[in-house]
Amino acid sequence: MRIDTLVVTGVGLIGGSFALALKEAGAVGRVIGVGRGRANLEEALALGVIDEIAERAADAYARADFILVATPVGQMARVFAEIAAAMRPGAVVSDGGSTKCDVVALARGLFGARLGRFVPAHPIAGAELNGAAAARAGLYRGKKLVIAADGASDADAVAAVRRAWQACGARIFEMTPELHDRTFAAVSHLPHVLAFTLVDEIARKAHADTLFQFAASGFRDFTRIAGGSPEMWRDIALANRDALLTEIDEYIARLAGVRAMIGDRDGAALDTVFANARNARAAWLESIEAGETPPPGPREA
Amino acid sequence: MRIDTLVVTGVGLIGGSFALALKEAGAVGRVIGVGRGRANLEEALALGVIDEIAERAADAYARADFILVATPVGQMARVFAEIAAAMRPGAVVSDGGSTKCDVVALARGLFGARLGRFVPAHPIAGAELNGAAAARAGLYRGKKLVIAADGASDADAVAAVRRAWQACGARIFEMTPELHDRTFAAVSHLPHVLAFTLVDEIARKAHADTLFQFAASGFRDFTRIAGGSPEMWRDIALANRDALLTEIDEYIARLAGVRAMIGDRDGAALDTVFANARNARAAWLESIEAGETPPPGPREA
Repeated sequence: MRIDTLVVTGVGLIGGSFALALKEAGAVGRVIGVGRGRANLEEALALGVIDEIAERAADAYARADFILVATPVGQMARVFAEIAAAMRPGAVVSDGGSTKCDVVALARGLFGARLGRFVPAHPIAGAELNGAAAARAGLYRGKKLVIAADGASDADAVAAVRRAWQACGARIFEMTPELHDRTFAAVSHLPHVLAFTLVDEIARKAHADTLFQFAASGFRDFTRIAGGSPEMWRDIALANRDALLTEIDEYIARLAGVRAMIGDRDGAALDTVFANARNARAAWLESIEAGETPPPGPREA
Repeated sequence: MRIDTLVVTGVGLIGGSFALALKEAGAVGRVIGVGRGRANLEEALALGVIDEIAERAADAYARADFILVATPVGQMARVFAEIAAAMRPGAVVSDGGSTKCDVVALARGLFGARLGRFVPAHPIAGAELNGAAAARAGLYRGKKLVIAADGASDADAVAAVRRAWQACGARIFEMTPELHDRTFAAVSHLPHVLAFTLVDEIARKAHADTLFQFAASGFRDFTRIAGGSPEMWRDIALANRDALLTEIDEYIARLAGVRAMIGDRDGAALDTVFANARNARAAWLESIEAGETPPPGPREA
């Protein structure tokens, strides 16, 4: 179950940590790094994240048993086309993108006869640090990895992706690309939009300096996700546009409802909303602490 | 500058920590606790937070040099009336409420000839734990204390409140009740409403279990403030209704703007919003770490 030659395209936190985790598990032979930033690749080599820098991407792809595309989604069209043209027929290709319907659509258009070898996936792990220097072997330990295949992936390729991420310590889940994107629109992409929007709104007010002066720890935690990469979150918002628009609309409607309760001085209704939220959050935290998977969720593979 | 007899009405995190901090600083003689919950007062006595439980509130108020009202705002009308009827003419009264215009209006209606002895104040410190057992002497060290007097407070009473909180280690700021309420509507009350609303929204969806299953650390931090007391936040939302409605309306308008950018696939506009937010937040965190007070803010007294 060992990958002889792994190619990581985009050796940052996600791709670099995948390589390090597989190395620590003894589940990989040689790791070749592909990327546009020479300095980052040199650093990855110096840190032992990769064993070799690909001078030509196509040559690396031709040698690979397993290729992880861990670039921003915006670069994947070019990368997929290069891989499809160069890869060996039996190799496995996967990705680490935060949205899946768009990646699946790209793959369908670009992999041609190799489409079965591609397995769309999404590791659920923090992404606020960038570059190979941020990579660490333990990043995925106990974290979730979603395989969001649409039926086009070969069973043995899915199994290989599952085994690789299990070797990294991840817990594997499977769901459709559509459910994946709806789910993360609600619990990740929407909160990011809300946090970015709040800080932007406050920063634009005439008395912004006073406001920031009295912002406290609650504000800091609430807006932590507004510290993420603007480019990455712009790409995610656009890539998952339809699901995100639905979530924003539903949220605005709910917020307008809460606004009406405050306007009407309806304390009982506010109490219901706030208590429902607090209780749901407490139950969620308890289920995390208990290591439970609240039913009925997607099956853990 | 020592308070001989301090009465704390509502011996919870805020009031209890005030008593403990003054004790640690050697700035108080005897602390008398007033409250409706006998078990909590017994615990406060056993923990040394207070030295005596008031059997009759009026008797305690008649003995006090300094009275801190640290009850929920909803109880303040009753408490203020009791204090006004019993207090000595030269004693000082202050509060720890999270909203100030409503407290000032209550005080104006209830303190009568004693109005000059009342100094509205708001310690900016976490309030997610309740009860005397949560109190600790260091809670206010380095934290902000806002005195939000409207001109009716006697200068010596303001000075006494300032000295007491300085003895607790707090940094003292002064602003009008109106600016206080506008400021905290934006940086505290609005974020709480947004967080409660998001969790409520997600918990009500048909696929809520799947959603919570894939919520990660970003969601946890974003919604931490939705773990607060529903009753307390209901009261704050209603007490600061007008300022909060303005903030909610401005936020919904800004969010609708961001929604339009996503709908229009306007990546450049999204980039501007997200980058402005990230940069403003980073500058804010830097100013906190540097211990700076970004000008032009209200004066630090």
